[in-house]
Amino acid sequence: MGLLRMVAESEATGKVREVYEDIMAVKGIGFVPNFWKALAVFPEHLEATWQKLKTVMRPGRLDLRTKEIIALAVSITNNCEYCIHSHTAALKRLGLDNAAIGEIVAVVDVFNGTNRIANAYRIEPDVTPDPE
Amino acid sequence: MGLLRMVAESEATGKVREVYEDIMAVKGIGFVPNFWKALAVFPEHLEATWQKLKTVMRPGRLDLRTKEIIALAVSITNNCEYCIHSHTAALKRLGLDNAAIGEIVAVVDVFNGTNRIANAYRIEPDVTPDPE
Amino acid sequence: MGLLRMVAESEATGKVREVYEDIMAVKGIGFVPNFWKALAVFPEHLEATWQKLKTVMRPGRLDLRTKEIIALAVSITNNCEYCIHSHTAALKRLGLDNAAIGEIVAVVDVFNGTNRIANAYRIEPDVTPDPE
Amino acid sequence: MGLLRMVAESEATGKVREVYEDIMAVKGIGFVPNFWKALAVFPEHLEATWQKLKTVMRPGRLDLRTKEIIALAVSITNNCEYCIHSHTAALKRLGLDNAAIGEIVAVVDVFNGTNRIANAYRIEPDVTPDPE
Amino acid sequence: MGLLRMVAESEATGKVREVYEDIMAVKGIGFVPNFWKALAVFPEHLEATWQKLKTVMRPGRLDLRTKEIIALAVSITNNCEYCIHSHTAALKRLGLDNAAIGEIVAVVDVFNGTNRIANAYRIEPDVTPDPE
Amino acid sequence: MGLLRMVAESEATGKVREVYEDIMAVKGIGFVPNFWKALAVFPEHLEATWQKLKTVMRPGRLDLRTKEIIALAVSITNNCEYCIHSHTAALKRLGLDNAAIGEIVAVVDVFNGTNRIANAYRIEPDVTPDPE
Repeated sequence: MGLLRMVAESEATGKVREVYEDIMAVKGIGFVPNFWKALAVFPEHLEATWQKLKTVMRPGRLDLRTKEIIALAVSITNNCEYCIHSHTAALKRLGLDNAAIGEIVAVVDVFNGTNRIANAYRIEPDVTPDPE
Repeated sequence: MGLLRMVAESEATGKVREVYEDIMAVKGIGFVPNFWKALAVFPEHLEATWQKLKTVMRPGRLDLRTKEIIALAVSITNNCEYCIHSHTAALKRLGLDNAAIGEIVAVVDVFNGTNRIANAYRIEPDVTPDPE
Repeated sequence: MGLLRMVAESEATGKVREVYEDIMAVKGIGFVPNFWKALAVFPEHLEATWQKLKTVMRPGRLDLRTKEIIALAVSITNNCEYCIHSHTAALKRLGLDNAAIGEIVAVVDVFNGTNRIANAYRIEPDVTPDPE
Repeated sequence: MGLLRMVAESEATGKVREVYEDIMAVKGIGFVPNFWKALAVFPEHLEATWQKLKTVMRPGRLDLRTKEIIALAVSITNNCEYCIHSHTAALKRLGLDNAAIGEIVAVVDVFNGTNRIANAYRIEPDVTPDPE
Repeated sequence: MGLLRMVAESEATGKVREVYEDIMAVKGIGFVPNFWKALAVFPEHLEATWQKLKTVMRPGRLDLRTKEIIALAVSITNNCEYCIHSHTAALKRLGLDNAAIGEIVAVVDVFNGTNRIANAYRIEPDVTPDPE
Repeated sequence: MGLLRMVAESEATGKVREVYEDIMAVKGIGFVPNFWKALAVFPEHLEATWQKLKTVMRPGRLDLRTKEIIALAVSITNNCEYCIHSHTAALKRLGLDNAAIGEIVAVVDVFNGTNRIANAYRIEPDVTPDPE
């Protein structure tokens, strides 16, 4: 469609090429996903998005697997087809099987429902001590 | 407001009382959260929601901590205030500190953004081998 | 807040006054809800919104009660606090009690959940004969 | 895609077979919709989801037709393609024609718009007496 | 699918024909977009929707180009495929190139992310003087 | 609440202080908005978010005013209260009055509605020539 004009790996120069190479190195994959090739229409956006994503996905208090699970949960909630595919593929590369994906889907199902119950009834937060 | 008529613990009888007691036992807390007291307006809904939630949150391929993290990510994406409070409190009881919560928020931020990029460009999924 | 500058009933003149009077007559209430007083900042928007809403809410294949139930279901799904209040109040004026509101909430809960399951698995529609 | 591994009717055993048979009996249809065949990847989730849906959709203060209308309104608001198809098909089996579906769509249109107006202006709920 | 029964230009009579002709005249295009042909299932909805859209899109404090940019930003946020196509096409007719579309996508990306951060932390609005 | 532990301007050191000073300089304001003080719980997230936002908001094909209008439209669609306040305040500093804000709200209203119509009817994109 008119929105999309991806920059192929063979066309990439300068900043775009640098980002492409870093993406393949950090992710340990031999191709640049379509998502990043589409972003290259605005190279500064490509670079800032990749820098931020790389920073945020780096293991810290949470490991990469947990962070990819969050990414899938968000993508299902928002109904982003490309994102559901790519985060499922990433989780399978990290060792999750279909049964584990099924558990993620089940949790996303339950809390999208309960979110609406809490919205509907405008329930006040419970007063609980903050352990921190 | 008019929507809300919570059933207090002292008023609960029959099926509602049974569910309340099971909630406190399973969660290991000494009170019934407001969410469940609001649901009691329709006791069959209360019971079915609790049974399903209990089934889905039971540790399986994923542990409880990971499942609560998914619940928080979904609740932030949907902007459910009560839910954000209650899942944050649950995660703190499970040992997460503010820095870990900050990492969850950061991942939710990044993928809510990238979801819109993928939506906007209607990007085709990458063809990748399914490891399963 | 800065966004809001409502036009009070006593200040309304011209087109705004006409719409205010029509709202009270059609709804059979003795006041102009805050929603419409906020919209009056852009009188053509007020008028076009009221004309469209009045047209769409007129009983046709579906009666007003069913249409207000749809309005509440949409408002809960979108987490619009004002809208949840006003459509609940409208349904109570139409005779629904708390148990009926609880059934609406329960259905909204269930299908917000199942929507995510169907999104997650990108399930193909079932092939069924169209009775029309 | 990798997410999906449906359990065909001919493969179903044990709990999955029981749920499949109950679905066909309760809905009065001669096939298991794809939605349920996808859920069978996690049999306890399948069972808990079906039990809850069956409980919530049982006629009470609201009849089945009204409940299916709510389901369609939620599915349109969330843009769930499978769900829009399946609830439209269900409503046609219950006797609604295209003009009635068009009225549902119109109401969903109007209130998704007005939800944003109320959000934008952070309008305070009107103070109205609660008839209950 | 069962939901869709578009009214072709050659079939349109009465009110539907009038609206179709006005759409082509106001938009300066030689065809009726599919969106409006679908709406014609409920002619009063078609007419009220077109009247309101025409009123709201008329240049005022903001010009048409800015209003179409808002329409695209909303459509990307909601993941409406038809709408993303049609507002992109409209913006290209108004002179935007792919790089400008890329800037819109980038802004939509950033603020869908920051919206979730603000939601998660329930941040209080800053107290600032209102210049109006 | 437990989620929030803002880093005050007087407490900020190192990277956090540098980002705070850059925010005030670039925005031309004499205080650090609460949003950024909350983000400081995860300093790398603060820095990457500010770098990306600054890059994306820099005038290019679109000017800052248009970009802030997109930000407000997204925030209203997602119902983010803090964001609605802050982008309204920013637009007022850029010279928009209440009537102009009212036009933004009206456009957001219309297209949130039409997005659902297009979703409901699964309308095929119109085939139009791409001018680029």
